[in-house]
Amino acid sequence: MSTTDEQFLADFANMSSFGATAGGGVDRQAGTAADHATRSWFSQWLAQHGFTETVDGAGNQFGTLELVPGAAYVLVGSHLDSQPLAGRYDGAYGVLAAAHAGTRVASEFRSGKVDPAYNLAVVNWFNEEGSRFAPSMMGSGVFTGKLALRDALATADPAGTTVAEALAAGHRSPDAGAPVLAQVARYAEIHIEQGRELEESGTHVGIVDRTWAASKYRVSVDGAQSHTGATRMEDRRDALYGAALVIAAARELTAEFEPGLLHTSVSELFVLPNSPVTIARQVLMNLDLRSPDESVLILAMERLGKRILDAQADSCTDIHLTLTHNWGLLSYQPGGVALGRASADGLGFTSKQVMTVAGHDSTNLKDVVPTVMLFVPSVEGISHNEAEFTRDEDALRGVELLTDVTRRLVRGDVIEG
Amino acid sequence: MSTTDEQFLADFANMSSFGATAGGGVDRQAGTAADHATRSWFSQWLAQHGFTETVDGAGNQFGTLELVPGAAYVLVGSHLDSQPLAGRYDGAYGVLAAAHAGTRVASEFRSGKVDPAYNLAVVNWFNEEGSRFAPSMMGSGVFTGKLALRDALATADPAGTTVAEALAAGHRSPDAGAPVLAQVARYAEIHIEQGRELEESGTHVGIVDRTWAASKYRVSVDGAQSHTGATRMEDRRDALYGAALVIAAARELTAEFEPGLLHTSVSELFVLPNSPVTIARQVLMNLDLRSPDESVLILAMERLGKRILDAQADSCTDIHLTLTHNWGLLSYQPGGVALGRASADGLGFTSKQVMTVAGHDSTNLKDVVPTVMLFVPSVEGISHNEAEFTRDEDALRGVELLTDVTRRLVRGDVIEG
Repeated sequence: MSTTDEQFLADFANMSSFGATAGGGVDRQAGTAADHATRSWFSQWLAQHGFTETVDGAGNQFGTLELVPGAAYVLVGSHLDSQPLAGRYDGAYGVLAAAHAGTRVASEFRSGKVDPAYNLAVVNWFNEEGSRFAPSMMGSGVFTGKLALRDALATADPAGTTVAEALAAGHRSPDAGAPVLAQVARYAEIHIEQGRELEESGTHVGIVDRTWAASKYRVSVDGAQSHTGATRMEDRRDALYGAALVIAAARELTAEFEPGLLHTSVSELFVLPNSPVTIARQVLMNLDLRSPDESVLILAMERLGKRILDAQADSCTDIHLTLTHNWGLLSYQPGGVALGRASADGLGFTSKQVMTVAGHDSTNLKDVVPTVMLFVPSVEGISHNEAEFTRDEDALRGVELLTDVTRRLVRGDVIEG
Repeated sequence: MSTTDEQFLADFANMSSFGATAGGGVDRQAGTAADHATRSWFSQWLAQHGFTETVDGAGNQFGTLELVPGAAYVLVGSHLDSQPLAGRYDGAYGVLAAAHAGTRVASEFRSGKVDPAYNLAVVNWFNEEGSRFAPSMMGSGVFTGKLALRDALATADPAGTTVAEALAAGHRSPDAGAPVLAQVARYAEIHIEQGRELEESGTHVGIVDRTWAASKYRVSVDGAQSHTGATRMEDRRDALYGAALVIAAARELTAEFEPGLLHTSVSELFVLPNSPVTIARQVLMNLDLRSPDESVLILAMERLGKRILDAQADSCTDIHLTLTHNWGLLSYQPGGVALGRASADGLGFTSKQVMTVAGHDSTNLKDVVPTVMLFVPSVEGISHNEAEFTRDEDALRGVELLTDVTRRLVRGDVIEG
């Protein structure tokens, strides 16, 4: 193993000690003490490797390297925050890979063999996960102008702490000189697949060409409080029973389609009053449907709508759905895909085009900047779980690929839209 | 309307202002500021009416009246705490009725026409509801020796506040002279029915002869965290889906029995991690089954057990049930029922023997002291809801009945066990 590879794995092990959990994962939701500790560690890492660190108003953390005075940036990165009790790779792998790629590429360009066309910046996007503060991909959302900074800062977690307060708890004020969108010419990101396609096909790396279509809803189920023991069954308007019928219906709907055509989930649920002796008057929950085929999503919602009417009737409740996010099959620029593939081919890595089911900061960036999105394999596709794992050889191959992609972007290789 | 009736209704309206909600109910969970405010008001009421107020270590609030120096007490009362967003009558009606009954009876005995056999005490049991601090009927549980004081005081609410801390927040230390079980000769309580039997049969008052059988469980559903979008449906071990199947199964089981033979509910549920983008690794919830027929309860649990195995298989989770409370058809002393009926007959009130589905402080007291438990009608049986209501004429009839029952108990009428 090369010295740079050893150094990457050692840095990755150090980084994974922040917010480390007994189960071998990490727990560092956005703006918590564990997230701030990881950010401080990364800040020191950037300084030690010659980057200039800046933080913008939304908490995005940048490390810039000047190669061409006044030129725009090739931006490379991902996110250091995690889900509760999550794995070590999701996001953090991509940030460290970007930092290592940036260091390697900068030293090459500074040796003068090739002329750089752009400057280089690595980024740790704030709150990609959205588990503590919704929506997810918050920092990159503000950076790309999709979300107002004011709205992001005012977002509160369930305990009432706002993003502004959580960021201030890290004792790091925004810098006037942090990069802004207008200064970014290209974006690249590498991430673990969070799926099994690469592993099952024995492919070294994935080049992301599209995102699955998704529809996300807030669901409210309104019933009436009553006594869990004394109230006759026929008099009950049990919001938790209504919610259970919706959860089961959403799940069972997936069996009506070919495997892999429809993913549904309900994963967040609040019960009012949540008492052992009072039937729930209200349940609030999420509902998430995703498909690689937009027509499946439309058909699924048609069928689910009918089942929700049945659930409403059976539970004597009122069930309302509010669409909160909705996107179709969105493509990454073909030129970015071609560049990623050329790079993999040049390195002798097997590659395939893959879709991403999960959202990434690159899904925000690709709408405004030519973007390359890369995947490395995940063992068994385990994700948002402490057992999430990517083999060292796969992680190191990804760093090598991202380094070459960064090299190509900084020297000015063309990405056609 | 008599002056005493008017005074009762005026006192009831005053009392209902503590923790009053916009929806016409009250919200004064045990040991909250609203509960303490109600207790302070009751403390003043007791002092103004010649009672000596004492509080014991478990937060039970007593008002004693000495009629026979050194004699044991006839204890009469209920509870002032409520569920979240609850009605004004549940518990509080019984405490105020006891206080008014005690005042009326004491003045009669002090006028010397009949000799009292016992002293008189009214009681506000701490934390009957158990919504903030489990278990329910906590104060009467400690008083009757069923629950250790130390365990009660160490019980924490979901925010981590203990009963000891919540009681101390009321700035009222326990009194050495508070009544103890050995000093209690008889117990009586009046409560709203929380059912529809009295209303539908047009009966003035109910004499409680038995409690429904009940089985209460804690249910844990263990799955595995994963990504709500990316994880294949067949790889999911979704604890919330498993929980939904159990909730639906428990509810649908009731339709297999005649109406009124089986009541089931799940009303409290905690999801881990409860994130919009992470499938639940664990759900913890309650499960409550009640029946007026013990054999129905046994058969219901047999059938539910099979459905839970199916739910476990369908959701790829592990589902475990732990029995937390279990009781059969428990009888109140026939002598107490006879005394209650004799009293109703004497007053010209129609009465019927009824079972209670809900637990009451009297279900603790009846096991250790001869007890009379009385019900007044509830409109539509609405309970644990701000719309809970008992008509003034029914409430006043109940005060009259409780007064006569208290009179009979204090003069020493025999209750045969």
